[in-house]
Amino acid sequence: MDLTAFHQALDTYLRQQMPNYTLQLMELVSIPSISSSPAHGRDMTRILENMRDIVTRYGFRARIVRTPGHPAFIATLETAADRPWVVIYNHMDVQPAQEPQWNTDPFIPVLKNEAIYGRGSTDDKGPALAIIHAINFLRTQNLPMPNIQIVYETEEEIGSPHFGAFLDEHGDALQAPASILVSDTIFEGDHPAITYQLRGMQRLEIELKTGSKDLHSGLFGGVARNPLNDLLHALSRCVSDDGQLTVPSLLEDVWPLSPEEQQELDKVAEIFSLSKFDQDSEQAARYSDDSRDILMRTWHRPTFEVHGFEGIQSTPGMIKSALPYQVKAKVTMRLVPGLEPANVVHKLQAFLRQIDPGIQVIDRGGSRPVVTALDNPFMEKAREACTFGFEREPVFVGSGGSIGALPEFQRVFPQAPIVLIAQSLMSDGYHAPNEHFRLEQARRGIKTIAHYLTSIADFRG
Amino acid sequence: MDLTAFHQALDTYLRQQMPNYTLQLMELVSIPSISSSPAHGRDMTRILENMRDIVTRYGFRARIVRTPGHPAFIATLETAADRPWVVIYNHMDVQPAQEPQWNTDPFIPVLKNEAIYGRGSTDDKGPALAIIHAINFLRTQNLPMPNIQIVYETEEEIGSPHFGAFLDEHGDALQAPASILVSDTIFEGDHPAITYQLRGMQRLEIELKTGSKDLHSGLFGGVARNPLNDLLHALSRCVSDDGQLTVPSLLEDVWPLSPEEQQELDKVAEIFSLSKFDQDSEQAARYSDDSRDILMRTWHRPTFEVHGFEGIQSTPGMIKSALPYQVKAKVTMRLVPGLEPANVVHKLQAFLRQIDPGIQVIDRGGSRPVVTALDNPFMEKAREACTFGFEREPVFVGSGGSIGALPEFQRVFPQAPIVLIAQSLMSDGYHAPNEHFRLEQARRGIKTIAHYLTSIADFRG
Repeated sequence: MDLTAFHQALDTYLRQQMPNYTLQLMELVSIPSISSSPAHGRDMTRILENMRDIVTRYGFRARIVRTPGHPAFIATLETAADRPWVVIYNHMDVQPAQEPQWNTDPFIPVLKNEAIYGRGSTDDKGPALAIIHAINFLRTQNLPMPNIQIVYETEEEIGSPHFGAFLDEHGDALQAPASILVSDTIFEGDHPAITYQLRGMQRLEIELKTGSKDLHSGLFGGVARNPLNDLLHALSRCVSDDGQLTVPSLLEDVWPLSPEEQQELDKVAEIFSLSKFDQDSEQAARYSDDSRDILMRTWHRPTFEVHGFEGIQSTPGMIKSALPYQVKAKVTMRLVPGLEPANVVHKLQAFLRQIDPGIQVIDRGGSRPVVTALDNPFMEKAREACTFGFEREPVFVGSGGSIGALPEFQRVFPQAPIVLIAQSLMSDGYHAPNEHFRLEQARRGIKTIAHYLTSIADFRG
Repeated sequence: MDLTAFHQALDTYLRQQMPNYTLQLMELVSIPSISSSPAHGRDMTRILENMRDIVTRYGFRARIVRTPGHPAFIATLETAADRPWVVIYNHMDVQPAQEPQWNTDPFIPVLKNEAIYGRGSTDDKGPALAIIHAINFLRTQNLPMPNIQIVYETEEEIGSPHFGAFLDEHGDALQAPASILVSDTIFEGDHPAITYQLRGMQRLEIELKTGSKDLHSGLFGGVARNPLNDLLHALSRCVSDDGQLTVPSLLEDVWPLSPEEQQELDKVAEIFSLSKFDQDSEQAARYSDDSRDILMRTWHRPTFEVHGFEGIQSTPGMIKSALPYQVKAKVTMRLVPGLEPANVVHKLQAFLRQIDPGIQVIDRGGSRPVVTALDNPFMEKAREACTFGFEREPVFVGSGGSIGALPEFQRVFPQAPIVLIAQSLMSDGYHAPNEHFRLEQARRGIKTIAHYLTSIADFRG
């Protein structure tokens, strides 16, 4: 590839097309596709219709697909019969935007200081649209690229509950991809970032029943078991007082870090901004002060978080003295490679039953962690593309969060490495008020993705 | 006292007056004086008006007294200027009665198998009315008895929140009593029971704040402190996994049992019915299988019961993965002699701050434990009275529960021993469906109280 010519062609494209990109993104952001709000159900279809109009203009065949939940979307662009296929995944739904700190209406996008402000601008509509333009650039320039299938969903922000079912039902509309490209992650400070690992998540209820009615705590207290007291004891043995999972049978399943992973971790620890972390958490108290340890905990260690209880008193300002008889804890665990949801539920149940045989662990749904080997050749191409497009060597990062669709892709297409190239900046306000996407990030994102796609045009991994 | 003549006179009185007693009690029970229900506020006044009509017919001067909550009642019967005064305390409010197991309307009393069924029949209207008849018997027979002041309240079932204020404001309408008589307790199996000790109760909120907003458990989980996880750890250090308070600074304040108390405990342990206990608790799981240990735990040991939380998730069937940032536990502690509410709050705060300096212990109101020395001469008279009226030697018992008014009496009249003579049977259904009071218990109660009051006619302790 003649990089200078490529660059010049890209600059020409961007000069011509960025006004178009801007208007398209503003229109996308104006559709309040809040997946968690039943009142906005119709907006899921509207946003996909809008995207269908855009991609069909750029040569795709596209269709909106019903699921038991909000709809999904498949768009296909065949470039050459002998080329491999690539799946590109984004989501078109957005978080709610009720924070009082918004300076403008979150669904009336504004262009200000070379950035588009509005809910969904950076998560995930702006990056998705940048990919479309990268493809359109390659197409109009007749540059090589793989055959492409775009998959959009509109349930990412609610945990992608139907994405697995969608893949099972409509998978035959998808060609087995050589790899999967995702742009729904964030730079590490000023550094472009390629995410090679995401934690999975297990939702659990942990139940203990010791009786059949509320009891008078005077007449029975101290003799009749208080299941809430007892469950607190059991739960406090699952997690240390410095916030780490302590169930031995689970810890022994966690994969150790490879030397390459250690190296990448050390690199990121050096550029990690604790003050940015604290700013994002609004100065929440932490279990750790050490950058490397913080990254280890976020990327590579499982969590055990108690979020609440049922069967207990929760009315503000009121304390009734009656003893509960059946309580349930609401727990989530973030899972790292080595921890499979079904096995986690099973081993946790065994651990808790040793403490109290009456404890029931109820599986409320889990997703596997996602990992792409660092030494995968697609990763090398992604590194080169970031260095070209963002003009800076990327770092390889893990993520503590989950993208619900990705474990489903890994289940259905286990051979296809998932490559996550970030276009968003930490300061863009993911899930926060005044979310925005800078046009400069869009331009660089388009360059990066164009470079990446053309470099893997014939790449089968 | 000529016991044979006394007995004969009592039998004559009962023959003549029991139909009257029955009708009076049925009318009292028909008034749904549910103190916890705002809809029944007016019934507190109605029940006291009804009682006022009864006692004025028997020679009392009576008046209903406003409090900041539901009203109270003072009735006075002067028998002789040189005799001591006695206060008699009962409550005229009742528990709600929404249990589906009621065979009849709880507020349309029925006489069946020589018992009156209905809410409040045994707790506490029947025993209160028996005391009135015992006094009326002594009065009509011109038998000696102390000067008497009856104090009724209508907030006992909601913890007597305004009783202290009532005593402070209307205390000057009360003559300093030589002792206080209460009939709001229960037989121990077939054995008459004199309660010499009740636990106090402390309500607490225990709060931990670690941040200022909910946090994404993926991006922050394992690093940002989860205050619910941390509070579970702290709470689990306050109580053992077999249900006992474990705060050393509080345990060292608990009074040891005297040899007399040990003896009474051993006696009751022998007659204690574990199967009755299990029946009452509907077979709730227990921390102990040993009768003596069960009594120790119920009467003489403090508890630490977690009832619920605020600031957490409690919606059934839903688990959101966000981390909480400010949580509050709702806790009650039953207090035994040696544990004073203010000191308990202070010491618990100090203990928890050693675990986590951010923990706040918030005092939501406490009542002292109540204790009357076993070797008190009024207790001996009560023992003789039970043996006469119930025809069986009583046992001296503790109670795990609390009667909110009694610590207030002990505060205002610290010299007056409180004597609690049970008239109710375990099988009467205190706070349960199909509550009833047997006429035979009423007859025996009248005899017992008449005997007690005449035997302490000149008794200054």
